[in-house]
Amino acid sequence: MSSVVRKFCSYHTLKKRLPILRWLPQYSLQWLRMDLLAGLTVGLTVVPQGLAYAEIAGLPVQYGLYSSFMGCFVYCLLGTSKDITLGPTAIMSLLVASYANHDPVYAVLLAFLCGCIQLAMGILQLGFLVDFISYPVIKGFTSSAALTIGFGQVKNILGLRDIPRQFFREVYFTFYHIAETRLGDLVLGLSSLLLLVLLKMMKNHLPKQLHRLSLLDRVCHAIVHFVGTARNAVVVITASLIAFCFESQNQHVFTLTGKSTQGLPPFRLPTFSDTASNRTVSFSEMLQNFGAGLAVVPLVGFLESIAIAKAFASQNNYRIDPNQELLAIGSANILGSLVSSYPVTGSFGRTAVNSQTGVCSPAGGIVTGVIVLLSLAFLTPLFYYIPKGALAAVVICAVSGVFDLRIVATLWRVKKLDLLPFLASFLGCFWEIQYGILAGVALSGIILLFNIARPEMKISDYSTVVVQFQSGLNFPAVEYVSDLLYRRVLEASPPRCVILDGLHVSSIDYTTVNGLRELIQTFQQHNVSLLFSNFRPKILSILTSAEIEGLRYFDSTETALGYLHGDDHTHELDDREKPLLNQTERLYS
Amino acid sequence: MSSVVRKFCSYHTLKKRLPILRWLPQYSLQWLRMDLLAGLTVGLTVVPQGLAYAEIAGLPVQYGLYSSFMGCFVYCLLGTSKDITLGPTAIMSLLVASYANHDPVYAVLLAFLCGCIQLAMGILQLGFLVDFISYPVIKGFTSSAALTIGFGQVKNILGLRDIPRQFFREVYFTFYHIAETRLGDLVLGLSSLLLLVLLKMMKNHLPKQLHRLSLLDRVCHAIVHFVGTARNAVVVITASLIAFCFESQNQHVFTLTGKSTQGLPPFRLPTFSDTASNRTVSFSEMLQNFGAGLAVVPLVGFLESIAIAKAFASQNNYRIDPNQELLAIGSANILGSLVSSYPVTGSFGRTAVNSQTGVCSPAGGIVTGVIVLLSLAFLTPLFYYIPKGALAAVVICAVSGVFDLRIVATLWRVKKLDLLPFLASFLGCFWEIQYGILAGVALSGIILLFNIARPEMKISDYSTVVVQFQSGLNFPAVEYVSDLLYRRVLEASPPRCVILDGLHVSSIDYTTVNGLRELIQTFQQHNVSLLFSNFRPKILSILTSAEIEGLRYFDSTETALGYLHGDDHTHELDDREKPLLNQTERLYS
Repeated sequence: MSSVVRKFCSYHTLKKRLPILRWLPQYSLQWLRMDLLAGLTVGLTVVPQGLAYAEIAGLPVQYGLYSSFMGCFVYCLLGTSKDITLGPTAIMSLLVASYANHDPVYAVLLAFLCGCIQLAMGILQLGFLVDFISYPVIKGFTSSAALTIGFGQVKNILGLRDIPRQFFREVYFTFYHIAETRLGDLVLGLSSLLLLVLLKMMKNHLPKQLHRLSLLDRVCHAIVHFVGTARNAVVVITASLIAFCFESQNQHVFTLTGKSTQGLPPFRLPTFSDTASNRTVSFSEMLQNFGAGLAVVPLVGFLESIAIAKAFASQNNYRIDPNQELLAIGSANILGSLVSSYPVTGSFGRTAVNSQTGVCSPAGGIVTGVIVLLSLAFLTPLFYYIPKGALAAVVICAVSGVFDLRIVATLWRVKKLDLLPFLASFLGCFWEIQYGILAGVALSGIILLFNIARPEMKISDYSTVVVQFQSGLNFPAVEYVSDLLYRRVLEASPPRCVILDGLHVSSIDYTTVNGLRELIQTFQQHNVSLLFSNFRPKILSILTSAEIEGLRYFDSTETALGYLHGDDHTHELDDREKPLLNQTERLYS
Repeated sequence: MSSVVRKFCSYHTLKKRLPILRWLPQYSLQWLRMDLLAGLTVGLTVVPQGLAYAEIAGLPVQYGLYSSFMGCFVYCLLGTSKDITLGPTAIMSLLVASYANHDPVYAVLLAFLCGCIQLAMGILQLGFLVDFISYPVIKGFTSSAALTIGFGQVKNILGLRDIPRQFFREVYFTFYHIAETRLGDLVLGLSSLLLLVLLKMMKNHLPKQLHRLSLLDRVCHAIVHFVGTARNAVVVITASLIAFCFESQNQHVFTLTGKSTQGLPPFRLPTFSDTASNRTVSFSEMLQNFGAGLAVVPLVGFLESIAIAKAFASQNNYRIDPNQELLAIGSANILGSLVSSYPVTGSFGRTAVNSQTGVCSPAGGIVTGVIVLLSLAFLTPLFYYIPKGALAAVVICAVSGVFDLRIVATLWRVKKLDLLPFLASFLGCFWEIQYGILAGVALSGIILLFNIARPEMKISDYSTVVVQFQSGLNFPAVEYVSDLLYRRVLEASPPRCVILDGLHVSSIDYTTVNGLRELIQTFQQHNVSLLFSNFRPKILSILTSAEIEGLRYFDSTETALGYLHGDDHTHELDDREKPLLNQTERLYS
């Protein structure tokens, strides 16, 4: 008992659960310098993105910033990846829009519940569950979400109002109302988009070698690099300034963000009931309204975060601990809900910025968090003037990289069957996200089970039939195998002897054992030999423990063949047998 | 097009779909004699069983007979097994009790819908679905059902009234009211039970060789054999006669069946709405009330029938066609619903009687059906006097053979893991049948997927690590394998070269390919060699089609080892390597 207590209270466990203890003792001034720079750069990205993503989630803009700081602080204590930054993301915002009815009370409660579920999953070590979501399913879902999110911003670029949010209706009504496009919004939106693309290209085309440049060139390089990295902030500020100029002359040509609550969010527990249209909605009713969201949001949040963390861990040569990541992201969501955050996860774009700017530890997140807090404290009055078109451009640029249909060509080339789960989740997610993911996961599961139910067999069909199972022999396959042997052997004339070769059989269960027993009986009734050979010791011990009457086993297929022909031809092999033997030998050489 | 039409209209297809065309041309007088005898014997069993099973289903007794004749006629035309007899069974009656609210309108509609679903499954060739119900799950369900059914009759033996039907409450209230036991019922019930057991034992102990017996002995033998086979009818008739004598002297000591509708059932479509307590229940509401029953009843019905058909086909050396069986049982249920039948399936006990009496073709069913019709036409007034205790004894005897917990010992010996799905379905079915079956199927599926997610690997860990996968390499396993290689190889000092041996890998998917790509990258970053060897051509072509950078493949593990050591030691093998090579060679010999 006390050893268990010691185990759980040891410094090693503490370091495992509070990864900050691992890197803090090594912290240096050099690290501080890099973390400050990276944190600042990420901060300049997260503020405009947060405002834009709140619009995707269907919430007032300030909720994007409410969601952007707590995750940074918590992850600094609990996270195992130096690069990742937690905060609002496009895909999580889309999920929040689906499940939280565009109501901040629901969104904040969802963050709290999502955090609790993720924390529980972490404690129960359930991180492995995401192993069952295959790559094609993830690609299908993210591509579908990127398209939904990207198209959802077209209405803001066009300045259209009152467009519904369900994807198909959104597409229909956007085109239906396209004549109502507002010129000011269109010009500003497209210009913002153009500027973002240009700045990104400029940054990507900067020369990598700095040491051969003059001082002036280096200063220019630094400026272009900074402007390119902070392009979201640059575009939003520029667009807001333009909007401010027009507004101050009473020219209302742009659709603006408008009034928002000012200052820092209150620190309080999420509310567990909602008052909508003069009726109090109880907690259990809210839970029912979330429905599948309570499974989808925590799982997708974890999946997104872990996928990003793994990608950067692999790139920068360190390992992350999936279950510790669950604890970190769960705690971030729970604590975030106390400051009116909606569910957060790792952001691919900002993590890339963080990594490229050379962050050295999760402490960079503290700087980012402070910048968000400062923006909330002092800049909220200015949010009024941010044009929606500029935010839409930020979103479209952020998700354009996620939408990637090249995977279709790759899957076609590598494994056509994997296109099915991809298409199921891609198409399904346009309809409803949970159904899309579920359909994809179910289809990939069915493909797995189909492999089990219809196992590949190598059948060498001469005067003796040698059947080599190419994989496991599990219960869904029993009927198929018996049937095949019946048709190929017992119904053929003359019926031939059969050797079942179990070289590749890695697992077996009671239903299979029972099926083999019946098979042996049937063969005995027909007076045809059925021999077993080459099974692994583990499988063989299961077969013998079942005490099957008439089970004849040989260590190798050759011995079994010799036995059969010893009966018929006093150890002389049939001429027709030789090619088989050669083939069988080849299998083992 | 016309060839397709020809294919579907050919005489061959017709014979496949109407199996009567296969055996009718060979029909002989000898067959007729045997079929008459078997049909008569089964008829004498099905009449008392039908009356008893109706009680399990919670329906008036005559519904048991309504369900007993149409299946025989239809199966004669469409069935592929000579032995099987369709009709009411204990387990189907229990299912009907669960899903049809003890209301004949529901029960008949359930038969109709169940038939439609089975017919559709047959047309869509979905018979393979039952392959996914493993033997332990079936055993768990049937043992649980047998116990539920058997205990459900204890109240009738004791003469108790108003006992609820849910298993746990039934047990509680049966013991709670045990003081109210009626002596007459108890004596009659136990005597019936005793008589049934004695008659069965007498029949089983009859000598097999008849030719050495005298004529008198042969006559006695025939009488005992007949009485033993028709023991259900003998007991019910005897008990009814006793009850009639007491009743005619106004002594009401037994609980009797009481009034029932007389004569043949009406021939009409099932009603698609119900009038319960002055409220009309619409068709969609009835569907909702059936709930999971619409999946469980057709599936279990088919499963029961196919399991019995297969067992007797294997015993008597013929094959059945599962999809044709689905068509037969589906049609039997649809046509049965026109004569107020509740869902039917193959009965194990009566099929055994049929087979033992030497039935030669499904024509025996016609005789059985005619006997049931005659009973309905002429005997229904007499049903009034059948004591419930006698029927309860018939049921208890019928299900006692199904309850079989020896499977627990067998599973413990052969494969302990299979106890989990057994226990899940055994215990779950006491609560609700659909949850029990679902839990069992889900658990066996999880065990299958666990094998996929945590594949066995044979790791030879010397200066070079050789990892031989023991089964497939599918997406749920990718993280596990990468993680293991990372921990065992890259985190070890010094890091060693790795050879992945794919001899036993039978399937691979895109997620795995992608995971291997990342693994190769990680190894390259660490400057550690990762080689592939021994994959089958099919798998290799998938790997190469993915154009993985840095994939190094060798035809055999030996070549790969030679390559590695050619680098380091100019083709001389490290001494520590030799045991590994031996081991690897052993694997292929």
